[in-house]
Amino acid sequence: MEEIKIHFNPDHVEVVVPKGENLLRAAMRAGVHINASCGGEGVCGKCRVIIDKGEVESEQTEKLTPEDHALGIRQACKTKVISDLEITIPIESRMDYKVIDKERPKTGSWQVISEIKIEDLIVEGKFQPPIEKKYIEIDPPTMVDNVSDLTRMIRTLKKVYGIHNLMIDFNTIKKLSSVLRQGEWNVTVTIGNPSNPLKKERRTQIINIEPGDTTGNNYALAVDIGTTTIWGQLLNLNNGEILAQQVEYNAQISYGEDVISRIIYAQKTEGQEKMKDLVVSTINKIIHQLLKKNQVPLEDINFITLAGNTTMTHLFLGLEARYIRETPYTPPMNYVPPIRAKELGIDLGEHVQVFLFPSIASYVGGDIVAGVLGSGMYRQNKLTLFIDLGTNGEIVIGNSDWMTCAACSAGPAFEGGGIKHGMRASKGAIEDFNINPETFEPMILTVGMVKPKGICGSGLINIVAGLMEACVLEQNGKFKTGLKTDRIREGADGMEYVLAWAANTQIGRDIVITEVDIDNLIRAKGAMYAGYMTLLNEVGLTMNDLEQVIIAGGFGNYMNIERSITIGLLPDLPLEKFKFIGNGSLLGARLICFSNLLKLDVKKIFSKTTNIELSENTHFMDNYIAALFLPHTDKNLFPRVYERVSCRERNLGYKSN
Amino acid sequence: MEEIKIHFNPDHVEVVVPKGENLLRAAMRAGVHINASCGGEGVCGKCRVIIDKGEVESEQTEKLTPEDHALGIRQACKTKVISDLEITIPIESRMDYKVIDKERPKTGSWQVISEIKIEDLIVEGKFQPPIEKKYIEIDPPTMVDNVSDLTRMIRTLKKVYGIHNLMIDFNTIKKLSSVLRQGEWNVTVTIGNPSNPLKKERRTQIINIEPGDTTGNNYALAVDIGTTTIWGQLLNLNNGEILAQQVEYNAQISYGEDVISRIIYAQKTEGQEKMKDLVVSTINKIIHQLLKKNQVPLEDINFITLAGNTTMTHLFLGLEARYIRETPYTPPMNYVPPIRAKELGIDLGEHVQVFLFPSIASYVGGDIVAGVLGSGMYRQNKLTLFIDLGTNGEIVIGNSDWMTCAACSAGPAFEGGGIKHGMRASKGAIEDFNINPETFEPMILTVGMVKPKGICGSGLINIVAGLMEACVLEQNGKFKTGLKTDRIREGADGMEYVLAWAANTQIGRDIVITEVDIDNLIRAKGAMYAGYMTLLNEVGLTMNDLEQVIIAGGFGNYMNIERSITIGLLPDLPLEKFKFIGNGSLLGARLICFSNLLKLDVKKIFSKTTNIELSENTHFMDNYIAALFLPHTDKNLFPRVYERVSCRERNLGYKSN
Repeated sequence: MEEIKIHFNPDHVEVVVPKGENLLRAAMRAGVHINASCGGEGVCGKCRVIIDKGEVESEQTEKLTPEDHALGIRQACKTKVISDLEITIPIESRMDYKVIDKERPKTGSWQVISEIKIEDLIVEGKFQPPIEKKYIEIDPPTMVDNVSDLTRMIRTLKKVYGIHNLMIDFNTIKKLSSVLRQGEWNVTVTIGNPSNPLKKERRTQIINIEPGDTTGNNYALAVDIGTTTIWGQLLNLNNGEILAQQVEYNAQISYGEDVISRIIYAQKTEGQEKMKDLVVSTINKIIHQLLKKNQVPLEDINFITLAGNTTMTHLFLGLEARYIRETPYTPPMNYVPPIRAKELGIDLGEHVQVFLFPSIASYVGGDIVAGVLGSGMYRQNKLTLFIDLGTNGEIVIGNSDWMTCAACSAGPAFEGGGIKHGMRASKGAIEDFNINPETFEPMILTVGMVKPKGICGSGLINIVAGLMEACVLEQNGKFKTGLKTDRIREGADGMEYVLAWAANTQIGRDIVITEVDIDNLIRAKGAMYAGYMTLLNEVGLTMNDLEQVIIAGGFGNYMNIERSITIGLLPDLPLEKFKFIGNGSLLGARLICFSNLLKLDVKKIFSKTTNIELSENTHFMDNYIAALFLPHTDKNLFPRVYERVSCRERNLGYKSN
Repeated sequence: MEEIKIHFNPDHVEVVVPKGENLLRAAMRAGVHINASCGGEGVCGKCRVIIDKGEVESEQTEKLTPEDHALGIRQACKTKVISDLEITIPIESRMDYKVIDKERPKTGSWQVISEIKIEDLIVEGKFQPPIEKKYIEIDPPTMVDNVSDLTRMIRTLKKVYGIHNLMIDFNTIKKLSSVLRQGEWNVTVTIGNPSNPLKKERRTQIINIEPGDTTGNNYALAVDIGTTTIWGQLLNLNNGEILAQQVEYNAQISYGEDVISRIIYAQKTEGQEKMKDLVVSTINKIIHQLLKKNQVPLEDINFITLAGNTTMTHLFLGLEARYIRETPYTPPMNYVPPIRAKELGIDLGEHVQVFLFPSIASYVGGDIVAGVLGSGMYRQNKLTLFIDLGTNGEIVIGNSDWMTCAACSAGPAFEGGGIKHGMRASKGAIEDFNINPETFEPMILTVGMVKPKGICGSGLINIVAGLMEACVLEQNGKFKTGLKTDRIREGADGMEYVLAWAANTQIGRDIVITEVDIDNLIRAKGAMYAGYMTLLNEVGLTMNDLEQVIIAGGFGNYMNIERSITIGLLPDLPLEKFKFIGNGSLLGARLICFSNLLKLDVKKIFSKTTNIELSENTHFMDNYIAALFLPHTDKNLFPRVYERVSCRERNLGYKSN
């Protein structure tokens, strides 16, 4: 992707963005404030900038006169960057305070890294998909050599490929004779490799046979069964390529947004069956879309891996999920044996087996195991904190020697739940925010750059951090009083800040953030932070011992690291220690499709990771109470944040509690 | 069983029979001729005997006057022996020639021996059924110990019974949580043992879980899938007991009597499905009868083994059987992987797996492998000939070092096929025969001792041997000419001997044996004998090297060893070298239910036995031609028979060719 350098005047701030990026987003990333209150739709007309040098693509908007246009004035929200630029923010659009550290790492899905990459697997000789195809030319039978068709085939596989200890699937036996003759004794055998090649006794499974040479067609599917969305990828097992990706809302969503409400529904008459059918139908829908899109016939899919949290896994398998919810939270199972996809209702060939990631505990599921696998933390010496943020934030701490994990009941704040104008990260959700610390006017960006409808999780973090940094918010989460702005006011739920006036919204009402919202966020981030602290306490370590923080989950992609540190959601560590892996669950599922050997690593992760029940942990409550502050009651835990905030305190009269 | 000694006068022949035996049968076994031409129904009135001493149970028949009765005269066919007896055969009933050697071993199902017995397995520590039940009391979960239900159960199994490497069946996982709670954490786990305990990597499979202690209820089924009949046995896996046995005609029989006609039917549209459904329905019928009879609930059956010939096995599995029939006779498969009984349509629990005996070749099937297992020949040093007689006579020669096998297309003569008055061994079939060498009058016995309807396979052997011994038949199978009897005559198919006059039969026609019938028998026995010869030739051995002959198959139970030697069907070896094992297929199937370790022996037998296609073998045809004689063209192969026959030759003017 071509990169564009933008120089913002008069702050002399530079940022590098991909060609085609929106200029308002680029400014937001650079930490350059431009007033913008319509989310980027172009209707407020406040984000005027002057293009001093370079090429942009920009609509001639009605908010600009022809004279403005001739002077190089553009609306930032309607401008795409084409070449390196010099931009001046005119006085009326600008703030004179650089809010965000330039060193903030880039976010956004294109920077997602994976610690275990296909290229690495190839180099390490570990690119060994669980399913391989072998073409063989078999000597036809004669009266002096009339062993059974099966023996004949196995004999050839042994001779040509040196494969021993073969087992054959009954479904393959069923068609063996006719396929051998149809292919005139030249056939392609699909084999499932044993997961542990070190153990010679493990059997190689013959799972399919086709006439002729079909070795070129060998595909698999990786699926992440999320509570909200289900992701699927179509993979080429011959070369490690991701051919396509598809996402659908989990059809269970109509019966409850979180796992608890799904479990409750599943306890009703036929509820369990219903939940299973819904998730299976969503997966089937994704499969059919992927196949259609890529014109891959169904019978060429030879494997499927799935990862999901413990509840999703149980509901998908049609297992009773109630004990996940009831104390002492024991899931029926962690590990499932290999099952036929067909048996689970998945629309794939008779021969396709399912690999399902094991769950560690009721609230640390296969999605986390998959994420840990993808992150590679289990095979590094570095002490790592792995975080997957959602309604339940799951955390794993450890390295190649040991790992502990826990689930933090963060509540739904990160998904926009329990927030007055909270919403999912869909079109119209405010996802980014800056505030002019003098005028207290906001700069907001919405998903899809349309008029705002509400606030999503990442937006919430950015808003609270922005309010903190502008010294509008006290450390206890209350608005500072006596500021000269009509944006801070007494609302129905107490004090609130107006993010967008009714006229600039899609909902026709003012969009606000209230002290109650902020309190919910504090409790959510407090639970997460208390989780890290408690796991570290358990092994006698501290935050400073952490050498790496890996953030997984779709939400992570949109999280602003520094602002998450600012509010106390992430530990105050140098930014280079943070890494995103995106959808870790999908990543792990994909890796298994490309390297059968990693199944052993899954087992390792599963058996090495100790789950700690935070609700029963005596330290957790203390850590939680201590974390109910912005960023934290203990200054020493957030030295960099306090340094930034206190310097502003001096400048702006911000008072620490 | 109480034994009764009978002394026959005036021949001073003694025989020991079980109490309650029929006197005519006892005489037949003793080789004492009593004229009897109605098969034992009592209507010809010719079998009069005098009870000199001892107690009998005998009907007052209309063929006897009160005076006769007072003199101790009884009809032998209507008399049961109660105590030791002295019997005189009156002149009108008797023949003065002792036909059969007294040393002839007993036949009949009560003498069936098995080389591998349950008692031996117990002594050898090999009584280890593939399925065991383990009762465990599990600690209920708490907040500090809330591992999954599955882990909790496995942990307890490890701790209490030291069982490692456990795998669990998905069907068991499905009910795990509810059963654990229903049993208040006290449950019985049904486990499937790995077949090879020497390989520690092999997994022990958890296949079922029940609340409470149900260890007392652990049953299995052994099934022999015969072409004609299907046998089932209900077995108690806790103590090795056979609880019940059931037999039904294979419902496929309506579509053809032999495997070839079944294969042809299976090639028709939906024929394969039909054949499968029929055999499965017969098996299900047997299962339901066995369970009902013994009041064992279906869910207590935990295992089933089946053995059948290659065609029966393929049709049962729903596999294409046509290649078994077409040259070069390659069956689709030999070995099948473990399959769920349910998947095959067998009415048993979800958790029940099937063990099917592997076939060695298209015409040496799992029934033979099971028989060889049951015979124990594969683990003895003795050079053994194993014979299973039927339409296809299968033979195995070898010992613990090596084995070869072959199928002889004997044709249907042993089952009464291709014989003018041939029939199955059912009620009214002539099964035993003697002839008075002076009067040429017959003594016939029928199955069920009713008026004769026809001749069964064992009867045919006995008739031909009897005719030979009485010098009525030449060695080339032609009747001697010029004998003074109206029983030998020119019939529609050439010369024939009248076994029963029309009035004494159920069919209202004379029942005869023709030279064509005899020719068919000669070809059938010739094929068998040529088979033994050819297999021995292959390894450079001769008949005299044979140390043991094991006869399997239901037919074997009714075979008279010496007379089978007389006609040249069995090799001329001392009688003590012959052993019966009855239904070897059922025996082998049963043994596997009681000793999982024997699965390894099955594998050994399977991989060690070399099949030889006789139809392609250059020696076979020579051996066959040489054997088309009574007993054989080579006198040296049947010294004892020639000695017996030639001594009579001197007495009676019999001329050797």
